[in-house]
Amino acid sequence: MGKKAGIPKGTRDFLPQQMRQRQAVMDTIRRVYTQHGFEPIETPTIENIETLTGKYGEEGDQLLFKILMRGAKAASGQCDLGLRYDLTVPLSRFVAMHQHEIGSIFKRYQIQPVFRADRPGHGRFREFYQCDIDVIGARAPLAEISLLHAVSDVFDALKFDGIRIHLNDRRLLRALVEVCDIDLSQETTAIMAVDKLGKIGPEGVRTELCERGISEASAQALLTHIGINDTNEETLSRLEHLFEGREDAQTALRDLRVIVAACEQFGCGRESLLVDPSLARGLNYYTGAIFEIQAKGLDSSIAGGGRYDHLIGTFSGRDIPAVGISLGFERICVIMQERGMFSQMPSGVDAVVTLFDASTLPASLAASRAIRTLGLSCELYAGFDKLARQFKYANERGARYVVIIGSDELSNGTLTIKDMQSGTQETGAMSSLVVRNGTLSFSQQ
Amino acid sequence: MGKKAGIPKGTRDFLPQQMRQRQAVMDTIRRVYTQHGFEPIETPTIENIETLTGKYGEEGDQLLFKILMRGAKAASGQCDLGLRYDLTVPLSRFVAMHQHEIGSIFKRYQIQPVFRADRPGHGRFREFYQCDIDVIGARAPLAEISLLHAVSDVFDALKFDGIRIHLNDRRLLRALVEVCDIDLSQETTAIMAVDKLGKIGPEGVRTELCERGISEASAQALLTHIGINDTNEETLSRLEHLFEGREDAQTALRDLRVIVAACEQFGCGRESLLVDPSLARGLNYYTGAIFEIQAKGLDSSIAGGGRYDHLIGTFSGRDIPAVGISLGFERICVIMQERGMFSQMPSGVDAVVTLFDASTLPASLAASRAIRTLGLSCELYAGFDKLARQFKYANERGARYVVIIGSDELSNGTLTIKDMQSGTQETGAMSSLVVRNGTLSFSQQ
Repeated sequence: MGKKAGIPKGTRDFLPQQMRQRQAVMDTIRRVYTQHGFEPIETPTIENIETLTGKYGEEGDQLLFKILMRGAKAASGQCDLGLRYDLTVPLSRFVAMHQHEIGSIFKRYQIQPVFRADRPGHGRFREFYQCDIDVIGARAPLAEISLLHAVSDVFDALKFDGIRIHLNDRRLLRALVEVCDIDLSQETTAIMAVDKLGKIGPEGVRTELCERGISEASAQALLTHIGINDTNEETLSRLEHLFEGREDAQTALRDLRVIVAACEQFGCGRESLLVDPSLARGLNYYTGAIFEIQAKGLDSSIAGGGRYDHLIGTFSGRDIPAVGISLGFERICVIMQERGMFSQMPSGVDAVVTLFDASTLPASLAASRAIRTLGLSCELYAGFDKLARQFKYANERGARYVVIIGSDELSNGTLTIKDMQSGTQETGAMSSLVVRNGTLSFSQQ
Repeated sequence: MGKKAGIPKGTRDFLPQQMRQRQAVMDTIRRVYTQHGFEPIETPTIENIETLTGKYGEEGDQLLFKILMRGAKAASGQCDLGLRYDLTVPLSRFVAMHQHEIGSIFKRYQIQPVFRADRPGHGRFREFYQCDIDVIGARAPLAEISLLHAVSDVFDALKFDGIRIHLNDRRLLRALVEVCDIDLSQETTAIMAVDKLGKIGPEGVRTELCERGISEASAQALLTHIGINDTNEETLSRLEHLFEGREDAQTALRDLRVIVAACEQFGCGRESLLVDPSLARGLNYYTGAIFEIQAKGLDSSIAGGGRYDHLIGTFSGRDIPAVGISLGFERICVIMQERGMFSQMPSGVDAVVTLFDASTLPASLAASRAIRTLGLSCELYAGFDKLARQFKYANERGARYVVIIGSDELSNGTLTIKDMQSGTQETGAMSSLVVRNGTLSFSQQ
């Protein structure tokens, strides 16, 4: 019975106060996504192991939680199931299975926990919520625009003081690999190295590239070309020139121009939308536009995503265009907590009704029902106890009112309302209880 | 790549229409529990394996999903984690760990999925939601009353046409075992057999008891004493007489009397509250009152629970009184579906704004924002397409309006609203868009 009351490494319990904050964030996300026409789905926590493996790169595969087979097969040590690692792969499996139940264009949101056997620490958990929106069945760049618009509205609604969207395209990264004379077999290696730019800096990237067998000259070219110019227009023009004659890259740049123009229209100027040729995104499955969103004043990202036009095809054999953005729910909650962005949350209960002995039970039970009917939350004290202890409990709970029915009240057919904020109290008949502007009192007749 | 797009046995995807129904049920449950002063918590999906094993009986242990250790230890086939099997054991672990962060009396609700490697079939799933409320730190019978009151209000709010609460107490079952001359070492065996009464009938229970080595006479006595009398009063009186001199049983009966009286007060007469000496509940950890709730006209239960005063102590070494009820969320949804109890759910989106080419994008984007600001949900069509296809899509989505901005509208600075229900359409300026009584149109100036 070693660690009797332990909790698994990297996981958390949520107490009521935290839960209320988390629910408020989720409700806002849900509301904004719904306003934008996105619809809810859920998928199981567990997926067949073959659904998950080979989708997240080698490193991802090692972070999967795997479930042992049951019954006689348990002894074999084999696993047939795994825990959800993200929401994108389950969505792709979902779309492949339900193609004929969803429309030609399918806009969904999904808010569920995901699991990664990562080394826990500083805001990194093994079980954490993701909030994804995706558009299935629509090509670039309009689906991208509707996603960025919805996400931008979410951060507005959460009262974030501005966000910055970093924007790039996997087709540009591929073109970059080509113009830098890097062998296409080294494409993933090069992209994964570039992805670490923020963490390890240009010298770190150069070292990694060279260690992986990429020439000094190629590494230097790559590092030069992923630079950011003074304006988005300059970056786009430079890349247009650099990738002259490369059709895929030119299409990507045209898409980016449309996205940049639309984002500027809904309020993202240069400060909040950055064409960033160094943005790479670690995941294997991206094929087109990729995004990462940062909160003003913070370097780490609070959302990310991209287009993955071939992932659904790995399940159904038929490619369907798809693009999505995942919000870093835990990161968002931490930032809001640290910056005091949560408005005052309601306390646990509005009113506690006393209980002294069995004789007071019927009247107190009736009072608790009456108060609930008036629209306040109300609980009956859960024992027969002294008044002082019931006051103490009501204080712990942050209750605004204690409603007292003692022997006096019982014989008079009345009840007493004690306002815990003002300290005042008044006595009256249960039938004349009213709530006016959120205040519990008695009507005047 | 065998079963390319499969989903694990006994699990389900939820499409938007179902999700909206499920969210409506959850929102109602959440609202009523909050009105009654219960507070939300969440615990991780994964628990240390030692937290889970030995809590649910032998059969339960075999239904646990176990997670293989990671890294080098994976090869050993050992498991250190398991998936949550219910919400009661995690709550007990939670209370043991957070004793000093919660009040002396802690009323919580929790809505999360649980996992059982059960044989799936007819409404039995391997991953399914439970909605639990529990009162920690309060003795019988007042905590029991507050639970039953809250649950009864939930079923009222969901518009169930009446429920029936079956009520018993584990202390009465123990007394029964004694008066029937069954050895106390056989207590669990006897209780588990009685628990099957509804499924296998009295003859089945008799056979099982005798096969397990309980005498014919004891089995007969047990079957006689678990009968239900014509009124709750008669059942209680009979048991009082039967258990004369047995203190625990007399306490249990006094508690039941208080619970019965209180439940009658909030609307549960004989028809909806039944003292049922045959109610046993399978789980090991119950110590006092036990409940099971049925929907009128259905035999299977939609909620169940009981008191478990020793479970928290297995984690903290110090017993804390506790009692809870778990709602069978999936069963409730199935019944509501079958009985047509879901009110009309909103469609996916109120309005779809057209898109024809890049020239119409800025105006259409602006229109979609304006309509959202007016309080309707609205999406921009996610491509450049023919009007007919955009109408088809809006129909699929159940949209009330299609808002058209074509070349005419573009040159006039107007937009056209097509009402998909009435077939009418009108054209006006974006600045005069209004929503009146939920209807999108133009103001008259």
